Amino acid sequence: MDAIAVRQGKTRPELIDIERPEPDDGEVLVKTLRVGIDGTDFEVLSGSHGEFPEGSEYQILGHEAVGVVEAANGTALSEGEIVVPTVRRPKNTSSRFFENDEPDMAPPGEYVERGIAGAHGYMAEYFTTPASFLVSIPESLADVGFLVEPISNAEKALELAQRSRSTFEWQDSAGLVLGNGPLGLLTLAMLTDRCERTYCLGRRERPDPTIDIVDELGATYINSQQTAVDEIPAAHEPMDLVFEATGHAKHAFSTIEALDSNGVGVLLGIPEDWEFTVNGGALHRQLVLQNKALLGSVNSNVRHYNRARNTLAEYPDWFVSSIMTTRCSVSEFADAFEQSPESIKSYIEFSA
Amino acid sequence: MDAIAVRQGKTRPELIDIERPEPDDGEVLVKTLRVGIDGTDFEVLSGSHGEFPEGSEYQILGHEAVGVVEAANGTALSEGEIVVPTVRRPKNTSSRFFENDEPDMAPPGEYVERGIAGAHGYMAEYFTTPASFLVSIPESLADVGFLVEPISNAEKALELAQRSRSTFEWQDSAGLVLGNGPLGLLTLAMLTDRCERTYCLGRRERPDPTIDIVDELGATYINSQQTAVDEIPAAHEPMDLVFEATGHAKHAFSTIEALDSNGVGVLLGIPEDWEFTVNGGALHRQLVLQNKALLGSVNSNVRHYNRARNTLAEYPDWFVSSIMTTRCSVSEFADAFEQSPESIKSYIEFSA
Repeated sequence: MDAIAVRQGKTRPELIDIERPEPDDGEVLVKTLRVGIDGTDFEVLSGSHGEFPEGSEYQILGHEAVGVVEAANGTALSEGEIVVPTVRRPKNTSSRFFENDEPDMAPPGEYVERGIAGAHGYMAEYFTTPASFLVSIPESLADVGFLVEPISNAEKALELAQRSRSTFEWQDSAGLVLGNGPLGLLTLAMLTDRCERTYCLGRRERPDPTIDIVDELGATYINSQQTAVDEIPAAHEPMDLVFEATGHAKHAFSTIEALDSNGVGVLLGIPEDWEFTVNGGALHRQLVLQNKALLGSVNSNVRHYNRARNTLAEYPDWFVSSIMTTRCSVSEFADAFEQSPESIKSYIEFSA
Repeated sequence: MDAIAVRQGKTRPELIDIERPEPDDGEVLVKTLRVGIDGTDFEVLSGSHGEFPEGSEYQILGHEAVGVVEAANGTALSEGEIVVPTVRRPKNTSSRFFENDEPDMAPPGEYVERGIAGAHGYMAEYFTTPASFLVSIPESLADVGFLVEPISNAEKALELAQRSRSTFEWQDSAGLVLGNGPLGLLTLAMLTDRCERTYCLGRRERPDPTIDIVDELGATYINSQQTAVDEIPAAHEPMDLVFEATGHAKHAFSTIEALDSNGVGVLLGIPEDWEFTVNGGALHRQLVLQNKALLGSVNSNVRHYNRARNTLAEYPDWFVSSIMTTRCSVSEFADAFEQSPESIKSYIEFSA
């Protein structure tokens, strides 16, 4: 069958021919429909993030997938069900986090990540996985279901943020998303239902399709080349919730200054090492005197996938279709990895 | 009546003679028993923190008090009840935080703080306050009740920390307190009931009475001159909970490195401005990839005072008496503000 993979020592994806996998006991055979591409895929290609599966000279790419059950193999699923796979799998070790259905909280060393680190991804005509790592979605979401994975990461981050503010009557009136990539826009659309006023920071100038989406969502676009994150309270207003989806390390610190009293910043980006100067005294003091919080969040679990499915179903159609800009067939796979200002979310269609 | 105050332009406390206050409607007249001294009092004296009450050329000191109701004045309290006053009062403005009994979450500008910022404190033979800002404690705690206020700050910080980790099955097996002052030790004693293993970091060498208390609590003392905060995971173990009670700004950042996956650091110190270099990329990445959290916490509300009363009642007697090192009468007040390595907690006895 066709699969899209990166070989050891290479940084470009290739179309390879491999054997169709056979499901083990408890595993389901899934026929892949669509697989999305995000920033992590480019980090895997460049080698800056992730690792090859043990003993394999290639890694199948892709962690944002939707498929249809081809062989339920005695599990509770049924043939023809539309499913989305989660990303983390246990790594040769017992893990209380997997036993508790909280693989997203497992520490490094206890998991592999399909398509990212130590396990093959979903960019293949078929994949197998234990049924417990599949989330069913309605057939009406089959075309867009690969967005459940990125949305689930935002759901988890939002859950952490909300729970951290649950000791008092928190008002998240003003919400800011740092980053206007697909994850930033998917999160912004989620926040417009929660926050009275939403903002989205990006580096681009108008005209730009992502800024058009920010406008249409009723949010305020902030150009980071004109307004730095720590200038946002003066230029706009202090924020109750800041959602960082850029991986720009300085944003972790300027987020503290962008927050209103009792605000929470949740970080999702994964930066490289970078040394710089901060006014650590002022940041520490602001955190304390204004009860601010800064949380990191990675990955997501089935609970978040289920929420993400509901969130996805509630997004307006215009929004989802304006995000899904670039559909490529398997033979056009190389185009899906081309980045252009016009392209927001690229995805590869394995089966319609 | 006698009161201990600092005058405008001065940095030493003075004994002054002022009129005994009269309770307004809804206010209670409290006869002061004991008032503790902490680091904030020294910041008020030096002028680095707080402000004088509007129009007053002096400020009565003290925010850690215990007293006895002298005149209930038609409130639900009774004469003879032992009470502890909270610190924050509303500032000429309606505040939803005070209406919700959450003055600790009020932003700067919506409150004054008795004995600290904009309002007189409790170092006087009598004080008045609305009954809603008084927490009753059992008569058996009358001698030690001034410890309820500092403990309540730790209770609030712990509540924020726990709630921030309540989306998953958090195990707070290893707890670290940064600082071996009174707040640090009171918190450490609280954590020994929660955490399997506790640690306390200080700058002092043995022999030292605070290190003796750390030992007797069954905790491990860490000398910061030998082991920096970010070296603690390698030297001991990574921490599930770090409680910062030093005001040393670099600790806010090295706390992130001291945490285990899913750990939470809660900051209580209030540092001055201080610029320094951090590996912001590594800190940001650790927060994200290990789901770490960093929270600021200030002040406390009646809920935390009630918990603190229970915590105080459960502390072993040896612990509480070893903390309360320095009792001074009103005439000896100057001695209470002398700091020495032998003195842990000083307090002034207004009435026995």
